[in-house]
Amino acid sequence: MATADVVALHAELSNWGRWGADDQLGALNLITPDVTAAAAATVRSGRTVSCARPLNTEPGPDNPVPVAHHMIGTATEGWGADYFALAPHGFATSHIDALCHIFHDGKLFNGYDTGTVTAHGATRLGIHHLRNGIVTRGVLLDIPAVRGVDALEPGEPVFAEDLEASEQKAGVSVRAGDALLVRTGRWSWRDAHGPWDFATRAAGLDAGCLAWLRSHDVATLGSDGVSDVLPSRVEGVGMPIHEIAIVALGLHLMDNLDLDAIAAACADEGRWEFLFVVAPLVLRRGTASPVNPIAVF
Amino acid sequence: MATADVVALHAELSNWGRWGADDQLGALNLITPDVTAAAAATVRSGRTVSCARPLNTEPGPDNPVPVAHHMIGTATEGWGADYFALAPHGFATSHIDALCHIFHDGKLFNGYDTGTVTAHGATRLGIHHLRNGIVTRGVLLDIPAVRGVDALEPGEPVFAEDLEASEQKAGVSVRAGDALLVRTGRWSWRDAHGPWDFATRAAGLDAGCLAWLRSHDVATLGSDGVSDVLPSRVEGVGMPIHEIAIVALGLHLMDNLDLDAIAAACADEGRWEFLFVVAPLVLRRGTASPVNPIAVF
Amino acid sequence: MATADVVALHAELSNWGRWGADDQLGALNLITPDVTAAAAATVRSGRTVSCARPLNTEPGPDNPVPVAHHMIGTATEGWGADYFALAPHGFATSHIDALCHIFHDGKLFNGYDTGTVTAHGATRLGIHHLRNGIVTRGVLLDIPAVRGVDALEPGEPVFAEDLEASEQKAGVSVRAGDALLVRTGRWSWRDAHGPWDFATRAAGLDAGCLAWLRSHDVATLGSDGVSDVLPSRVEGVGMPIHEIAIVALGLHLMDNLDLDAIAAACADEGRWEFLFVVAPLVLRRGTASPVNPIAVF
Amino acid sequence: MATADVVALHAELSNWGRWGADDQLGALNLITPDVTAAAAATVRSGRTVSCARPLNTEPGPDNPVPVAHHMIGTATEGWGADYFALAPHGFATSHIDALCHIFHDGKLFNGYDTGTVTAHGATRLGIHHLRNGIVTRGVLLDIPAVRGVDALEPGEPVFAEDLEASEQKAGVSVRAGDALLVRTGRWSWRDAHGPWDFATRAAGLDAGCLAWLRSHDVATLGSDGVSDVLPSRVEGVGMPIHEIAIVALGLHLMDNLDLDAIAAACADEGRWEFLFVVAPLVLRRGTASPVNPIAVF
Repeated sequence: MATADVVALHAELSNWGRWGADDQLGALNLITPDVTAAAAATVRSGRTVSCARPLNTEPGPDNPVPVAHHMIGTATEGWGADYFALAPHGFATSHIDALCHIFHDGKLFNGYDTGTVTAHGATRLGIHHLRNGIVTRGVLLDIPAVRGVDALEPGEPVFAEDLEASEQKAGVSVRAGDALLVRTGRWSWRDAHGPWDFATRAAGLDAGCLAWLRSHDVATLGSDGVSDVLPSRVEGVGMPIHEIAIVALGLHLMDNLDLDAIAAACADEGRWEFLFVVAPLVLRRGTASPVNPIAVF
Repeated sequence: MATADVVALHAELSNWGRWGADDQLGALNLITPDVTAAAAATVRSGRTVSCARPLNTEPGPDNPVPVAHHMIGTATEGWGADYFALAPHGFATSHIDALCHIFHDGKLFNGYDTGTVTAHGATRLGIHHLRNGIVTRGVLLDIPAVRGVDALEPGEPVFAEDLEASEQKAGVSVRAGDALLVRTGRWSWRDAHGPWDFATRAAGLDAGCLAWLRSHDVATLGSDGVSDVLPSRVEGVGMPIHEIAIVALGLHLMDNLDLDAIAAACADEGRWEFLFVVAPLVLRRGTASPVNPIAVF
Repeated sequence: MATADVVALHAELSNWGRWGADDQLGALNLITPDVTAAAAATVRSGRTVSCARPLNTEPGPDNPVPVAHHMIGTATEGWGADYFALAPHGFATSHIDALCHIFHDGKLFNGYDTGTVTAHGATRLGIHHLRNGIVTRGVLLDIPAVRGVDALEPGEPVFAEDLEASEQKAGVSVRAGDALLVRTGRWSWRDAHGPWDFATRAAGLDAGCLAWLRSHDVATLGSDGVSDVLPSRVEGVGMPIHEIAIVALGLHLMDNLDLDAIAAACADEGRWEFLFVVAPLVLRRGTASPVNPIAVF
Repeated sequence: MATADVVALHAELSNWGRWGADDQLGALNLITPDVTAAAAATVRSGRTVSCARPLNTEPGPDNPVPVAHHMIGTATEGWGADYFALAPHGFATSHIDALCHIFHDGKLFNGYDTGTVTAHGATRLGIHHLRNGIVTRGVLLDIPAVRGVDALEPGEPVFAEDLEASEQKAGVSVRAGDALLVRTGRWSWRDAHGPWDFATRAAGLDAGCLAWLRSHDVATLGSDGVSDVLPSRVEGVGMPIHEIAIVALGLHLMDNLDLDAIAAACADEGRWEFLFVVAPLVLRRGTASPVNPIAVF
């Protein structure tokens, strides 16, 4: 897409004001109690699957700032206890972005001023607004499966047509209030080829998918990458999915998920929909939370 | 109870070996896929409720080691980003204990040696074994409601009879595989009276409840306190619920939950059972995780 | 002092521009190489004395946010290694304040804008400008010794007359370029009476001492408290010593030192002057450093 | 050297018991008050020079676990304040090793058992024993200057002959109680060639230098690398300087110093000796401290 076209999407796809001037939840408003109850009703086998990577304490090219994890109680102290510290954004931690994470033109989602994000934390759109969790239908679109490969190449884009082909293959239609998970095969590729500088080359959605996300009224979007294809293929816009999906659509993004186990489970169950539960930590005025999203079949 | 009686419970109530010599999950094994599916089938209204306190960054008599939470991106940096650090055990953080947290007589649950818990972390019974989450039926027993008070007094014990009276009042029977939540009204008491040195005086279960927990085959136990009544009323045994429920029964305990909102929701919905989801962070060889358990009605 | 009088001191005592428009060191400029060499020439016995408290990991009323200190290598790992984390400002850590720590009327020392202090750190007056250390003559004024008590009472003010009486008793005259250490006996008082809420009641300098500090051209000021008497005795100005000494005079303050050992050493050596060395960590754009100042007799 | 020869050095060069069975300071005992006073008497110009690198918050191949540094007060909060966290051992931080850092055959220096190093910290040989600082004569041996190069190559060994050639060139003789600084030119090499995996290839002392260090009764040893040449050139012994100098000689090692500025100052002053002051943070039972050693000419 051309730069101007992407910038124009901010206005074209905007959800500002759609849920009121004081709204703090964005597209999560699409998950009404009815949507939640319907999602629970899809449960059949009771199998549960994590969509998170372990917190990564090992430095490496795709984990520049590792999680600190220290034991403060061991055999010699008479109990087991530990401590950990992390900056949840970053390319190795499964996390959910709060809507205060990304700015556009001096504004956050819904038109809040970026001046609300200070060293005190974010007084608007903090992650704590998600305290009651996300409980909705999840849908997995497994792009490598559609293309007949194990994993997309780093930097390989995913287009709206891929999403639709994947829907068709899975026999499922993405609808309002869904949690959409898009698998690129990142971790399979890493298992085969080793770590690389993920920040500069990542499979993910082309900016052309933004209109599709908006028209389908997806409630939240997750990926085993960062949803964005990197490089972005749009000059001057580093991460158009982040910049437009978060700020204009009000979409909470889940980055660096592990979608390999759930892809296998979907194939095994023959179903690409499931009950999907995300339970962010209640970090007041925070910009993200590490999460372990759970799918229930 | 007498000290010797409590010590004897280790052998009497033991679940060691019940799920195999290599078992890492303890009583969570009671949550079979069937139990999970049945729990999902209880969902009616789709209302979701958090059972967690916000992570507490304010020092105080009941929060001696506050969570560190710092912003690393703000308006001036062009994005919102943050960092946090915590020791999840402690009296102000809603967390789930891994089975490697508590020792008895040189052993962990299932007979593992405490020497497996080193500065490297716990090579047995680490919190990462819960990566696929806990998804089961939750039952709330609201003890103050049974006693006709807003909150129990700090140090006030809860007996097995109270649990049964509460079951009866709620019209629900605790059964194998349930997540049992016992409300003492801690936070209501704190709202009314201010913070106090919770570590020395806390409402909670008398050691006499341990046999009840075992005979009902509860899968996990949570409380707005630390499950134990403090002081413990058993000479020489500081926290018998922790020491026997974790080490002998293999029960993952959830401490310092917030059960006020869910108590209100239960009363409003007229139901004291719900789908209950806990999604611990995948901290390899860790001894606990902060959690935000979600109830779905 | 009256509020207006204190506010007026900002202009009256200002060192802005005295060492150039780009100066980053403030009154430390008074420590010329000659001053340093003369200080080294005062060394006689070779006795060395620490002026720091141990980093405090124990929570308490005078240590609301304890230092985190965790072992990451122990006997079982085959080496000893650790990790620590702290916010150096605070009432239990011996530290030196960078000049970017305190603001007045939208400005830092030398007229820099407070907008230079962002989540990126302080681009002016950061602690890293002290990388070559402070090496000068130190002078200890032991106020309780002058008053014939073990320790001042929390909240007890120190006046310019006390400083002069103490000089006379010690047989030493404070001169340009000195590091001035003022002992109030805080830790002796704590040893005798236990910890208290130091933030609200502390012995220290009355605002009337500011003119004295300026006329004597002290290069840096340290105390076993926070230099300021608390409460400040000046309505509407919480910490006049911090607010004027740092912002107007450009004085680096050293807070929460331990001056008991050095007071004993001075009495024993019969000298209240010594070579004084402070070696702040080189924390780029930082606002402070924990320090262990060393006196050499 | 052959492996067996290096192992034999533990007994041959041992200082165990030399300063008593309870000694906690090792070779620092060689710095008597007389040595300190004599060192102060060498001061001429008053020039001070830091020997530390800035704390490094940037991840990279030679900084796998960067220092965390976050602002907790900025322009919007009304004051400047920050927080930092680090594990001082590691290849980018200027630090001093406590004697409890390295083990040999189940023992620490002076024969203490490694079982004294637990998650509680080290009850023997902790860094807090250095609270009164190191104040002695420092001597810089600039090896690249002797060899007529800017910097040694990564992996290039330094032999006892090089130390002696450097002494001769500098016109200085290393004597008992000295702080010996050996420059390899690490940072100059890095400036010219970029960062590399320092842990696997570093210029430093060959194990053959150990006898020289012992016979000269050096009190502490510092380097811009880790003192050891890497790889070590001794099969089966990864870091013989660390393993023997710390455990057998009781030598506190200072790693990752910056010796470029001091080398320039020495050349400029025409003197390779100076007053040298190290002021470790008082971290009780700690295994190291980040330091900013200061040279005074």
